[in-house]
Amino acid sequence: MSQKPSIPKGTRDFGPEEMAKRNYIFNVIKSVYALYGFQQIETPAMETLHTLMGKYGEEGDQLLFKVLNSGNYLAKITDDELREKNALHLAPKLCEKGLRYDLTVPFARYVVMHRDEIQLPFKRYQIQPVWRADRPQKGRYREFYQCDADVVGSDSLLNEVELMQIVDTVFTRFGVRVQIKINNRKILSGMAEVMGAADKMVDITVAIDKLDKIGLENVNEELHNDGLSEDSISKLQPILALQGTNDEKLSAISDILKDSETGTKGVEETRFILDTLKKLNLKNEIQFDLTLARGLNYYTGAIFEVKALDTPMGSITGGGRYDNLTGIFGMPGLSGVGISFGADRIYDVLNTLNLYPKETATSTQLLFINFGEKETAYCLPVVAKARQNGIFTEMYPDKAKMKKQMSYANAKHIPYVALAGDNEIQAEKITLKNMGTGEQKLVSADELVAIIKK
Amino acid sequence: MSQKPSIPKGTRDFGPEEMAKRNYIFNVIKSVYALYGFQQIETPAMETLHTLMGKYGEEGDQLLFKVLNSGNYLAKITDDELREKNALHLAPKLCEKGLRYDLTVPFARYVVMHRDEIQLPFKRYQIQPVWRADRPQKGRYREFYQCDADVVGSDSLLNEVELMQIVDTVFTRFGVRVQIKINNRKILSGMAEVMGAADKMVDITVAIDKLDKIGLENVNEELHNDGLSEDSISKLQPILALQGTNDEKLSAISDILKDSETGTKGVEETRFILDTLKKLNLKNEIQFDLTLARGLNYYTGAIFEVKALDTPMGSITGGGRYDNLTGIFGMPGLSGVGISFGADRIYDVLNTLNLYPKETATSTQLLFINFGEKETAYCLPVVAKARQNGIFTEMYPDKAKMKKQMSYANAKHIPYVALAGDNEIQAEKITLKNMGTGEQKLVSADELVAIIKK
Repeated sequence: MSQKPSIPKGTRDFGPEEMAKRNYIFNVIKSVYALYGFQQIETPAMETLHTLMGKYGEEGDQLLFKVLNSGNYLAKITDDELREKNALHLAPKLCEKGLRYDLTVPFARYVVMHRDEIQLPFKRYQIQPVWRADRPQKGRYREFYQCDADVVGSDSLLNEVELMQIVDTVFTRFGVRVQIKINNRKILSGMAEVMGAADKMVDITVAIDKLDKIGLENVNEELHNDGLSEDSISKLQPILALQGTNDEKLSAISDILKDSETGTKGVEETRFILDTLKKLNLKNEIQFDLTLARGLNYYTGAIFEVKALDTPMGSITGGGRYDNLTGIFGMPGLSGVGISFGADRIYDVLNTLNLYPKETATSTQLLFINFGEKETAYCLPVVAKARQNGIFTEMYPDKAKMKKQMSYANAKHIPYVALAGDNEIQAEKITLKNMGTGEQKLVSADELVAIIKK
Repeated sequence: MSQKPSIPKGTRDFGPEEMAKRNYIFNVIKSVYALYGFQQIETPAMETLHTLMGKYGEEGDQLLFKVLNSGNYLAKITDDELREKNALHLAPKLCEKGLRYDLTVPFARYVVMHRDEIQLPFKRYQIQPVWRADRPQKGRYREFYQCDADVVGSDSLLNEVELMQIVDTVFTRFGVRVQIKINNRKILSGMAEVMGAADKMVDITVAIDKLDKIGLENVNEELHNDGLSEDSISKLQPILALQGTNDEKLSAISDILKDSETGTKGVEETRFILDTLKKLNLKNEIQFDLTLARGLNYYTGAIFEVKALDTPMGSITGGGRYDNLTGIFGMPGLSGVGISFGADRIYDVLNTLNLYPKETATSTQLLFINFGEKETAYCLPVVAKARQNGIFTEMYPDKAKMKKQMSYANAKHIPYVALAGDNEIQAEKITLKNMGTGEQKLVSADELVAIIKK
């Protein structure tokens, strides 16, 4: 029975070239995480729905992929329940497990379950796929990788400083110039207080977050529609208009928020982070941005976001400080701060700016042409020698036409091809062809290794 | 709302030390695959049930994890169908997708879908988790990694030779002495022919496969129960009794199978593989084993299996030649040969034999003790310098008690600790403590880097 195969919508296959590029990205991020003392963990693709449900809001609950119970999954469902035909009510009876929706909730679950094995502060990183039943569209997938690092169990702002250094190091290694924006949830809180609208904090920040896209006038209109008084809105104007260096902005906002304890705390935190970073000579600019908001229900302190300077693309990295991540699992009082690199967007940025190292496109370095049984028998020990010397080497397995073998070498971007016919066998040599220059040379096995290893 | 968290049965969390060991295993396997010109691909965790169903037998279909359709998954189900309450019939209506069950079927699907981009012969490797709703038990999990490499689109026996070299190289790098057993499906076929029981081939090989465990007498009884004649069974006895070197066994079986075309082909193939390998000086022994059977419905040529010599453990690697893998997806005529390393069992073997490199347990190499704000400000540029020199470095983020910070260093197996108080600041030096020897030294930042990089 033959069938035309397909894959579920919103999912992707990654072929060799895409994998090489993705591995390059993951390896850079991993190596920097390791440099800063973060250790890798992995959690299962499936979590219990107890762990997942109610953690991502109502929309999130609906976007969870749920896994049908094994065996007779209908056994515990009554006829009445079936007759009701209520998809929402039946789902938790049909399914006990769901696919990981992000890396943060499984991490919180991990910390609580392994509290006795973990050394606090715990610096972990995790690079795994997550699944969301979102409507697929350009750049949005139902399966995608997240690359998170978090420190839990430490309130110190040195953790925030380190995460900024990590961002700077990672993008410097990628060769991507970025702008790092930083703000603080406590400053936003203070702003709402000063505006006399502490209860409207979410509305205020949601509106402010759109400043870039819709302009000041529309932001003010939205605030008005949210029920903020003209007085409140007018108090916000000088804050949004703040210009100048980070220090100038800090000094101005410090003055504006001087009567808000929370706001003042946020200013002090931001000042410490920025002052400390000044002495560490980052390659990229860090900008204190009072209009940066991010997912507010989650974060409680510093928040940050990264954008590429040389190509338009949304946020490619973000993160912040949160309190009480593990509280939902019965372990209150743990503060944490985390960062997440957006691998898919970084992939697109590196493609657009053509920043992948040349080696990324190369896998095999040397191909031996197959002229038949006698010739391959002569070549195989040389093939083995090349590999012993760390050269990625192939012997074309079949005695195919020369043209076919050479086009195989071209398709795989193999830079060297080795040939051995009667003449070479008699001379106990190999003809080595440089596929870039076309140059051919009769060499010994040792010379061949030396040329390619050069 | 607090809850005691758990993970689905049969799944595992991997903490930092387990991850380091697993990464070591995967990296060794990956690096050897790359050395032989295999390229990595990845496929989605979810495949359509069209792709998965009917590929793993009836049991396999039941062990597939099925993913509930998003949205109103009940919409297309009639009341009558619901009332029937037949879990088997309803499942394909509730679910269109399932979790990957192995890497072979997704690979076949990949080859067919991407036939126009792929260069044949296609050498791919793939290291990803698979999911099976098996009853969990010791050493059997519902989520586990497979590490497969396959060549499709080439009949050449040089591929089999290479896979044997790969096995030899991988286990040599691990430091595990192994025995590689090889046989050929065509030889087993020939044996059944010679016994006058070509139609009983599956029964014969299933019985033979148990020789190690249940002994010759019980094997013969099983064959008898399977309906084989005494004459057939007696013809098998000299084959099972074959002893000696590979060459002696080859010569004997060649004689026994001389009237079977298929059997003779199998002997020739095995002879070519073993003769070619003789010249390539493998470190581990390859044994021609006529009782090796493996999953017979699948393989059509060479089959092989690897066992550790120094610790009892089932097969830790296996593979073989198959024909027509992609035929089920409408692309007939592609032959392939593949190998699969059993990562979980290799993990256990390396643990038992204590063969992990010492570095596997180390992540952070250097910890700076935190004595307070002034001291950390002095240390941070030195921390940055250490990292610029590739040293995995941490600054303890909080001003905690010395004892707590030192026990953090011990728990993470950090070999060097750096301390700087007033004296060090005045002298513009750092005290570096070697945690192994206890030795302390007052050094400059450059000396610190030099000592740790040594």
